[in-house]
Amino acid sequence: MQFIDLLIYVSIYCKMNDIKLSSNSTHSSTILPVNKFYFDYNATTPLAPEVIQTINDSLKEHWGNPSSNHIEGSKAKKALEKAREEVASMISAIPSEILFLSGGTEANNLVLYSAVVHFKKWVISQPDSSFSHMKPHIITTKVEHDSIKYPLLRRYFVEADVTYLGVENLPTSVIDNIRPSTCLITVMLANNETGIMFSVAHIARLLSEVNKKREAEGLFKILLHTDAAQAIGKLPVDVTDLKVDYLTIVGHKFYGPRVGALYVKKLGSGAPLYPLLYGGGQERGYRSGTENTPMYVGLGKACALVQENVLEYSSHMKKMRVYLERQLKKAFANYIKINCVDPCNVSNPEECSIPPSGPKQTHFIFPRLPNTTSVSFYYPEVPVLENSGVCSFHAKRSIRLSVGRETTVPEIEAIVIDIKQAISKALDPLKLPTSSSTSNST
Amino acid sequence: MQFIDLLIYVSIYCKMNDIKLSSNSTHSSTILPVNKFYFDYNATTPLAPEVIQTINDSLKEHWGNPSSNHIEGSKAKKALEKAREEVASMISAIPSEILFLSGGTEANNLVLYSAVVHFKKWVISQPDSSFSHMKPHIITTKVEHDSIKYPLLRRYFVEADVTYLGVENLPTSVIDNIRPSTCLITVMLANNETGIMFSVAHIARLLSEVNKKREAEGLFKILLHTDAAQAIGKLPVDVTDLKVDYLTIVGHKFYGPRVGALYVKKLGSGAPLYPLLYGGGQERGYRSGTENTPMYVGLGKACALVQENVLEYSSHMKKMRVYLERQLKKAFANYIKINCVDPCNVSNPEECSIPPSGPKQTHFIFPRLPNTTSVSFYYPEVPVLENSGVCSFHAKRSIRLSVGRETTVPEIEAIVIDIKQAISKALDPLKLPTSSSTSNST
Repeated sequence: MQFIDLLIYVSIYCKMNDIKLSSNSTHSSTILPVNKFYFDYNATTPLAPEVIQTINDSLKEHWGNPSSNHIEGSKAKKALEKAREEVASMISAIPSEILFLSGGTEANNLVLYSAVVHFKKWVISQPDSSFSHMKPHIITTKVEHDSIKYPLLRRYFVEADVTYLGVENLPTSVIDNIRPSTCLITVMLANNETGIMFSVAHIARLLSEVNKKREAEGLFKILLHTDAAQAIGKLPVDVTDLKVDYLTIVGHKFYGPRVGALYVKKLGSGAPLYPLLYGGGQERGYRSGTENTPMYVGLGKACALVQENVLEYSSHMKKMRVYLERQLKKAFANYIKINCVDPCNVSNPEECSIPPSGPKQTHFIFPRLPNTTSVSFYYPEVPVLENSGVCSFHAKRSIRLSVGRETTVPEIEAIVIDIKQAISKALDPLKLPTSSSTSNST
Repeated sequence: MQFIDLLIYVSIYCKMNDIKLSSNSTHSSTILPVNKFYFDYNATTPLAPEVIQTINDSLKEHWGNPSSNHIEGSKAKKALEKAREEVASMISAIPSEILFLSGGTEANNLVLYSAVVHFKKWVISQPDSSFSHMKPHIITTKVEHDSIKYPLLRRYFVEADVTYLGVENLPTSVIDNIRPSTCLITVMLANNETGIMFSVAHIARLLSEVNKKREAEGLFKILLHTDAAQAIGKLPVDVTDLKVDYLTIVGHKFYGPRVGALYVKKLGSGAPLYPLLYGGGQERGYRSGTENTPMYVGLGKACALVQENVLEYSSHMKKMRVYLERQLKKAFANYIKINCVDPCNVSNPEECSIPPSGPKQTHFIFPRLPNTTSVSFYYPEVPVLENSGVCSFHAKRSIRLSVGRETTVPEIEAIVIDIKQAISKALDPLKLPTSSSTSNST
């Protein structure tokens, strides 16, 4: 069995977009039914039953056009505004700060675009001609989601100089890299691959001081964005703590539907926003297009569930993640490393170049999401992780396992056995612990 | 009773966005329950029961991330591709020419953006420096949807000269207005307010000749787009007849969900397309963002229903529309005019300035959608229609009524009585025909 087949079989996120499910990829060691092996909750979650019910009801009841001045329109509009309250409430925002969007990708693109446009307009408005040739500068990390990374790389109207920071010196490195032309800092709240979390609240505190000075100097007020896609639903997220200007919300990462929302601080009078799409003027003109009411109503429900139960979800996920990591350690002993937790023990420092690097050293420690584990195996090269604070040696041998609200102990035991069998087959003979040591302890 | 209350009450589309449902807006002459009075199917339709069921099943079954290389991802991807086939099949396209999008607004914005970007890239690529200062030019009509109108008016990266054509001399006026710098012609297939239809196929034939000459002259090949939002589901729409480069599809106008699709002729090797949103590279990189699978699966179902039943839908709608117009004529006699059908009989030619104008003259006649009637009353001024081939006198006195698959004869009779009572109350005394003449004939 190829390691690649293992990855496919055990439903591991592996970011190898060119690999398709091959028809001859069979595996006979099934312990639970195949579709029970889902350890990819960071890619997407199923919808909560309550959310499905809400969407289903809404498809029947709220089909009117919220812009229409009649009873069907009014029903839809009320439902939409209730959903907006639920989204806002989850993150301690107010409803008028919430913009409904097609998803996280649109939200992230919109923030980048808005910051750049706002900076350009600011430059033009300055009487001081020394600003006139200033190109916008954006600070971000090397580990952002593609919907931040690619607009910055490719998009012709997000023309900006970009500083990509490694994760090891956050948050101070953010402040150290500010330039007079900096217009936006965008740092995710939690990384999708390793689960490590960044202290955006800390960045906000430091930035607040910087912005005070900049105001006195007549410089552009730097905007702060965080993509909270992976954090929401796993840990409490509160904009009054984070003090960001923008925060991205993605429904399908927390048992909601495939739509998103963007928090914009004091939208209208606060953080600037420029529409990417023009048309009927929906969402106060910031996002035209007849609203996908049933999906937004479903998003509202998913947010309400999170607000009510996030600590319970979080606690369950953490328990499962801890058990998963313990079982993996039992099964693979020294042949496995939990990334961003275990010390790096690559003998050749060249191979582990991210500081603090070298043999036997401990990697920087970040808090982690309760549901995510990134593990490196010492055997096969698996091209997965890059720039995530994991040395290239380990990055090439890593997989991600993310648990969800439904994950159970038997599932974890089954998947650990499954991974072990697959690896044994791929790379016989291995000196792994005997199988008796992998069973039945919590 | 205010005329405005009538508009709200009878669920007429009236494009007065600043008017809210007032709490003291009461009406006692209810014949059918209020929510039965729905004559606004051009604003949005309810979802077909089969579509609701499909979405509901899909929310449970296809929640996986279509980009994930595992069983849940694969199930979602298959469902998505089946839906793409259904959308393509409805308009005689091939699946690879269909791009799933959040809605018609995104589709229309994307076309405008792509044409402009493509033209700019073409200009840069020309060795002949005489092209280098050429600004893109777009030809459209005065009656396009806001999602065409406003991007052209407001959007800073759709920088183009625009020619807005009146509808009276289409399609020849399109060709007459072509310039060397013309990059796009966008003309809707059917107008949302009056229901009049434009011969896009005719424009395509004429344009094909023009493009042959332009090719010989080394000029940019002009692209052709049609927004088919209002036509699909009411009449057969076939891209092999229309021969357009782009065609906009909007689910919620034909009993589908609030998402859309864009037909792009030979996408990848044919009509150019440039992404507005970057990220995970979904939709072959043309539209990033995890796909809203259940909604697209629902769109596919709505398209399959249309493909199977469009002639039946069309025939029913037309029957209802004919009956509605007959009942209105009985109720209002000479005090009503069916726009784009009846001759204009304003005595002062100044008041009816769109050619052919003047007293007693017949307006140009276009084919109309089977479901839409735009009627003008001679009494109150209702600020509704502009530029739609209706003189300003009539435009100010017009309302739109659009019927749907469920519209019945009793509903029509009820709404006609309702409108008549409301107008009588608003403008007593009127010399309307007696109520006996409005009842019971098909």
